Amino acid sequence: MEKIKCILSYDGTNYSGFQIQPNKRTIQGEIEQALQRMHKGEQIRIYASGRTDTGVHAKGQTFMFTTPLQIPEENWQKALNTLLPDDLHVHQVDKVPADFHVRFDALEKEYRYFIWNDPETDVFKRNYYYLYPYPLNVRNMQEACQYLIGEHDFTSFSSAKATAKGSKVRKLSLVSCHQHGKEIEVIVKGNGFLYHMVRIIVGTLIEIGRGDKKPTDIPTLIAAKDRKVAGPTAPPQGLYLWNVTYDLEENN
Amino acid sequence: MEKIKCILSYDGTNYSGFQIQPNKRTIQGEIEQALQRMHKGEQIRIYASGRTDTGVHAKGQTFMFTTPLQIPEENWQKALNTLLPDDLHVHQVDKVPADFHVRFDALEKEYRYFIWNDPETDVFKRNYYYLYPYPLNVRNMQEACQYLIGEHDFTSFSSAKATAKGSKVRKLSLVSCHQHGKEIEVIVKGNGFLYHMVRIIVGTLIEIGRGDKKPTDIPTLIAAKDRKVAGPTAPPQGLYLWNVTYDLEENN
Repeated sequence: MEKIKCILSYDGTNYSGFQIQPNKRTIQGEIEQALQRMHKGEQIRIYASGRTDTGVHAKGQTFMFTTPLQIPEENWQKALNTLLPDDLHVHQVDKVPADFHVRFDALEKEYRYFIWNDPETDVFKRNYYYLYPYPLNVRNMQEACQYLIGEHDFTSFSSAKATAKGSKVRKLSLVSCHQHGKEIEVIVKGNGFLYHMVRIIVGTLIEIGRGDKKPTDIPTLIAAKDRKVAGPTAPPQGLYLWNVTYDLEENN
Repeated sequence: MEKIKCILSYDGTNYSGFQIQPNKRTIQGEIEQALQRMHKGEQIRIYASGRTDTGVHAKGQTFMFTTPLQIPEENWQKALNTLLPDDLHVHQVDKVPADFHVRFDALEKEYRYFIWNDPETDVFKRNYYYLYPYPLNVRNMQEACQYLIGEHDFTSFSSAKATAKGSKVRKLSLVSCHQHGKEIEVIVKGNGFLYHMVRIIVGTLIEIGRGDKKPTDIPTLIAAKDRKVAGPTAPPQGLYLWNVTYDLEENN
C-alpha cells in the first residue's frame, strides 16, 4: 500500500463545499468518484487538511489517500486530472510516508480573502471577490491586522454555531492587508483556524475600514470572548484556502 | 413613448447565448422578463447591437426598447439591476431619439479575446480565457494582425454554417495582439463582423503563434475566400463583446 498526498485547486462556485454529502455536488465526492474509477469500483476514502464551505475556493488544498496501485507520481496527476471535472485541478502528487497525516501534520495554513472595492458592479468578479461598493480606509484595516497577530483566544472570531469543544486558542503568524487598485487582499496565516474565523476577521476588518470600529478596538474584541462583539461573517466567495505547509523533511 | 438605450455587461458562462429561445436561459430572455415585470405583464421586445453565442461574454453590449413608462434614466438603471440576475449588469441607460437603432446606427464594434498561455491549468480562468498550454510566438501573431487590418472579403474567416447572404466584405480598423505576463489579449475593431469571425481570426493567429502558418500567409488566406484555409474557431469563453460605438451627437 502507498500513501499519496495531492495539492489541489478548485473553483468552489458550483460546489456545496468540500465534505461529501448525499445528493450534493461536493469536492470530496468528485475526487472519490474519480479514485473509485481508477480502483475498478473500490471505494477510496480521502482525507483533507480541512473542509471548506459552499462557495469557498482553494489554490492549495491538500488531501491524502492510501492505495494498492503502483503508479508513478506524474501519472497519478495526469489520471486524476483526466477524470476530474474542469473546476478541480491537481497541481502536485507526492508519495508520502505511511505515518504522514495531511491534517495533523500541517504546520500552518494560509488563507487569502479578496475584496473588490468599486461602486460599479463587475459581473466577472461576483463569484471570486466580495464586491464591496463603499469607501474603505485600508490604512486603518492594516493597523488592525497587527493586533490579530500572535496567540489569542479567538472565541469572538468563531461562529457561535461551531459545535467543536476544546480550546479556541490559535496562533496567527501573519495577518496583512494590501490594496492593489480596486483589489484589497487580506492574508491570514496560522497554526489552526476556528469555524468561519477568517471570514469573521475580514468582516471585522471591513467594519474598521468603513469607520464603525477602530483598529485599537481589536484587543477589546478578542478579550470579550463573545461572537456578538466582532463584525459580520464576510461572504464565502472572496475566500481562498491558499496553501498548507508541512515539514515533510522530518518524515523522511 | 420613449426609446431607451442600455449598456450591459454579462458573464455568458451560464447562458445559451444572447438570443431568446424556448426553455433555455438566454440574456435576451432574462432582460425581457425583467422588463415585463416593470410593465405589469406587458411584453417588451428588446433589440441588441448583435447576438453573442453560448459562453461568450460582454463588457459593453448595447440594447434598446420602446416604453410607455416615464422614468428618469438613473431609476431605469436601478430598477433593471434589481430585477436582473447577478451575472447581468446594466452600466448605463440613455434616452435616445425615436429614429435611433442600436444595430443599424452602430459605427464600430470592438471585440477582445483573452488567451491564458500557461502549461499549468488555472481553474479560476477556465470560463474567462482560452487556456492554451503550448508556447506561442506573440511577435509573429502581432505581425499577422497587420495583414488583417483594412477592408477585405472575410469569407475565409466566417463560419461555413452562416446562412446570411450578401457581401462578406468588412472593414477592420484595428487588429492587435499584446502579451501581459501569461495573458495574451487580441483586440479587433471593425464596422461589422461575420458569424464566428473574431474566433476564426484568433484560431488562425494561434496557428501562426505556434508556427503552423506564417504571418505573411494571411493575404493568401483572405484571397482564397474559403473557410477551410483559415485556422479553427477558437472557443467561446475567451471572447468579449467589448464596446459598441455610435455617433449619437448627430441624432440630437
